[in-house]
Amino acid sequence: MTKRFLLSENEIPTQWYNIVADMKNKPLPMLNPGTRQPLKPEDLFPLFAEELAKQELNETDRYIDIPEEVRDKYKFYRSTPLVRAYGLEKALDTPAHIYFKNESVSPVGSHKLNSALAQAYYCQKQGVTNITTETGAGQWGTAMSYAAKAFGLELAVYMVKISYEQKPYRRSVMHTFGSQVIASPSMSTKAGRDILTKNPNYQGSLGTAISEAVELAMQTPNCKYVLGSVLNHVTLHQTIIGLEAEKQMAMAGEYPDIVIGCFGGGSNFGGVSFPFLRHNLLDGKTTRFIAAEPASCPKLTRGIFEYDHGDESGYTPLIPMFTLGHDFAPAHIHAGGLRYHGAGSIVSQLKKDGLMEAVDIQQLDSFKAGVLFAQTEGIVPAPESCHAIAAAINEANQAKIEGKQKTILFNLSGHGLIDMAAYDAYLADDLSNYELSDADIQKNVGKLEKIA
Amino acid sequence: MTKRFLLSENEIPTQWYNIVADMKNKPLPMLNPGTRQPLKPEDLFPLFAEELAKQELNETDRYIDIPEEVRDKYKFYRSTPLVRAYGLEKALDTPAHIYFKNESVSPVGSHKLNSALAQAYYCQKQGVTNITTETGAGQWGTAMSYAAKAFGLELAVYMVKISYEQKPYRRSVMHTFGSQVIASPSMSTKAGRDILTKNPNYQGSLGTAISEAVELAMQTPNCKYVLGSVLNHVTLHQTIIGLEAEKQMAMAGEYPDIVIGCFGGGSNFGGVSFPFLRHNLLDGKTTRFIAAEPASCPKLTRGIFEYDHGDESGYTPLIPMFTLGHDFAPAHIHAGGLRYHGAGSIVSQLKKDGLMEAVDIQQLDSFKAGVLFAQTEGIVPAPESCHAIAAAINEANQAKIEGKQKTILFNLSGHGLIDMAAYDAYLADDLSNYELSDADIQKNVGKLEKIA
Repeated sequence: MTKRFLLSENEIPTQWYNIVADMKNKPLPMLNPGTRQPLKPEDLFPLFAEELAKQELNETDRYIDIPEEVRDKYKFYRSTPLVRAYGLEKALDTPAHIYFKNESVSPVGSHKLNSALAQAYYCQKQGVTNITTETGAGQWGTAMSYAAKAFGLELAVYMVKISYEQKPYRRSVMHTFGSQVIASPSMSTKAGRDILTKNPNYQGSLGTAISEAVELAMQTPNCKYVLGSVLNHVTLHQTIIGLEAEKQMAMAGEYPDIVIGCFGGGSNFGGVSFPFLRHNLLDGKTTRFIAAEPASCPKLTRGIFEYDHGDESGYTPLIPMFTLGHDFAPAHIHAGGLRYHGAGSIVSQLKKDGLMEAVDIQQLDSFKAGVLFAQTEGIVPAPESCHAIAAAINEANQAKIEGKQKTILFNLSGHGLIDMAAYDAYLADDLSNYELSDADIQKNVGKLEKIA
Repeated sequence: MTKRFLLSENEIPTQWYNIVADMKNKPLPMLNPGTRQPLKPEDLFPLFAEELAKQELNETDRYIDIPEEVRDKYKFYRSTPLVRAYGLEKALDTPAHIYFKNESVSPVGSHKLNSALAQAYYCQKQGVTNITTETGAGQWGTAMSYAAKAFGLELAVYMVKISYEQKPYRRSVMHTFGSQVIASPSMSTKAGRDILTKNPNYQGSLGTAISEAVELAMQTPNCKYVLGSVLNHVTLHQTIIGLEAEKQMAMAGEYPDIVIGCFGGGSNFGGVSFPFLRHNLLDGKTTRFIAAEPASCPKLTRGIFEYDHGDESGYTPLIPMFTLGHDFAPAHIHAGGLRYHGAGSIVSQLKKDGLMEAVDIQQLDSFKAGVLFAQTEGIVPAPESCHAIAAAINEANQAKIEGKQKTILFNLSGHGLIDMAAYDAYLADDLSNYELSDADIQKNVGKLEKIA
């Protein structure tokens, strides 16, 4: 029995897949935060590399060529393996066939490099010399640090303060790759100073870190801002995951009944899902798509669909999204990469249209799943990925109850070797779940300005 | 241009290579520490699984079948990629072609799993229920923890105290896989108590941890001891690295002029080297083989060839080895996996016969090489692997001086994501080199009992 499926170098996809071209209901337009008019690419040019701005708003091209320079870098670690999780299946005694796409073998340990390399490339191609970004758990900052070095760019990373303190090794990896890392909120930006003035002990959030990175980019010559999720172009780059997985599932002689990704801003979920969802949209397939989000940050399962900012300070465009409100401060769960208030506009539209599902996973259930996965498959998963594993286990258990052989695919977005403090806490019975009341949620979403 | 070379599942070697069968001068026999007579397999049965004891002393079978159960587990992560280090070559502006075998993609992050799985399998097959081992930097303990879990064994790991304290994440990974981890020296064994009585602040060494693990194994019912390097059967299992690399180099259309591995006890070096060295022994090839050891623990470059124990307390057989003396306490360099006083008997004989070379690498040079590798190839290497990288860089620079296109292969034994404290210290200019005087060395080797 074959355990791993790999593509040869010439089978690696040469184009990304732009699902917007195939959506009957396109996402609502993003709005310029100043004029409240639908965003044009030019509106994004001050902040983003032009090619990325165009990709962000591209609704017509189904496939977009991956530049040769990016494909060359992908070859460092792609294709990533598609793995049949025989060990996990056996432990669950399930009739389900469980596969995972192992993005943890990327040199930086997660899927984030797929978009980091693309973004660094487009910036460099345009003559940009400096870039800024934010990072939560640190996976994106790590990936961007290597990508910046690979394309000769200087990078400043605003890292959510609690992660900066909880995950010193993440900082160290970024330093080793040669980037600057600043704990956010910081005194280096107005956004950071304003927040620190109001709350000197604030432990930071992705929304705040984005505000700081955007502000620094706007004030630095020849500098652009890059980000690791939420936006359409990021998810576009991540479709390499699902496009590879599709070929690899065919090598295994199977097609997924269920595709699962953990959910922070949506790029990892969209990356593994959209190429398969394409066949639901176009070819009558009936695969289910499940976004696994933390119960402490449940925008898809309990948020509202509304225009909202991507950042705390309101610098970014207004995005039509399932959101908990841009000043929602999620509990300090260890899956730092999932502590984000909103979902990208594509996923939000797909969810609204019933083309995908979402589940929320409690922190303790996520680590329980992660430990079982580690002990059966040998890989300690990132706390974020544990949410996808927990959802996959739930579906495999359901298949057992129903006595049905279902084929489940999930994305292992990264390994957890730099998050071991989280496992320590879990094994020491030192972690807890977080319950949000309806009032907790209403407090933030109630403040959102309704936009006609 | 192709960057990575991978084997399909049916191309993965099905046998290990036993170089002793091809050596004209066999290693001198190991001696029973009690009788001082050459060791027979039966002498090892109390401590080791019988099949492993037989492999240890096998001088006749050139190839040994890899059991199907082990091959099934190898499929989780093998073949590992052979990678052309185009980025590093460019940074060095060298005519050399540099390849590395990337063992860091194993689920536990290093090559150690290759032998851990085999040892766990043979123990389980024999009905053993409990095993003990030691670990220095923690790579072996991590691998053994997963392997024990995979084959349903209970594992106790004695971890060198300084690593236990410096590398808490390593402990956490072992805990996550479900094993017991004890800082060594400990009060749980006579060996540990004796050492702590003499020196309560002793920070531990591999030699001490081995003594403790051996003692516990001898006193526990249905328990065997396993170890991660030095002995012949461990290196045997690691030859999967070189056997794969040989096929992958052929895919690249090249054959190495130089093969390099970092050197602790010798299993990683032997693993990558012996399959190529076979062609020097049998087919007239003239490849150079370079063991890269730390300047602070220079057994091959500055030790003496003598019978010595593998552990501090003298529980193990007497091994004919290049050694610094079994009570040599190496400086606390961050490459904990290389802090071992002796070399295995095969490597020692090969070195004595001039069939391989050794170089010593200073700590600062090793990290300088590691940072360059990280920035050019995207992988933060383990501090141990940095020694191999430094030696490869030296050879590539030499090729440039000579204006020759040489083909260099080194083994990237593991990644350094759990060793980031070491990189922090290096980047903060907080590390130093260690110089050993001849007197330092003489102090320990002078105590060795000469055995005719």
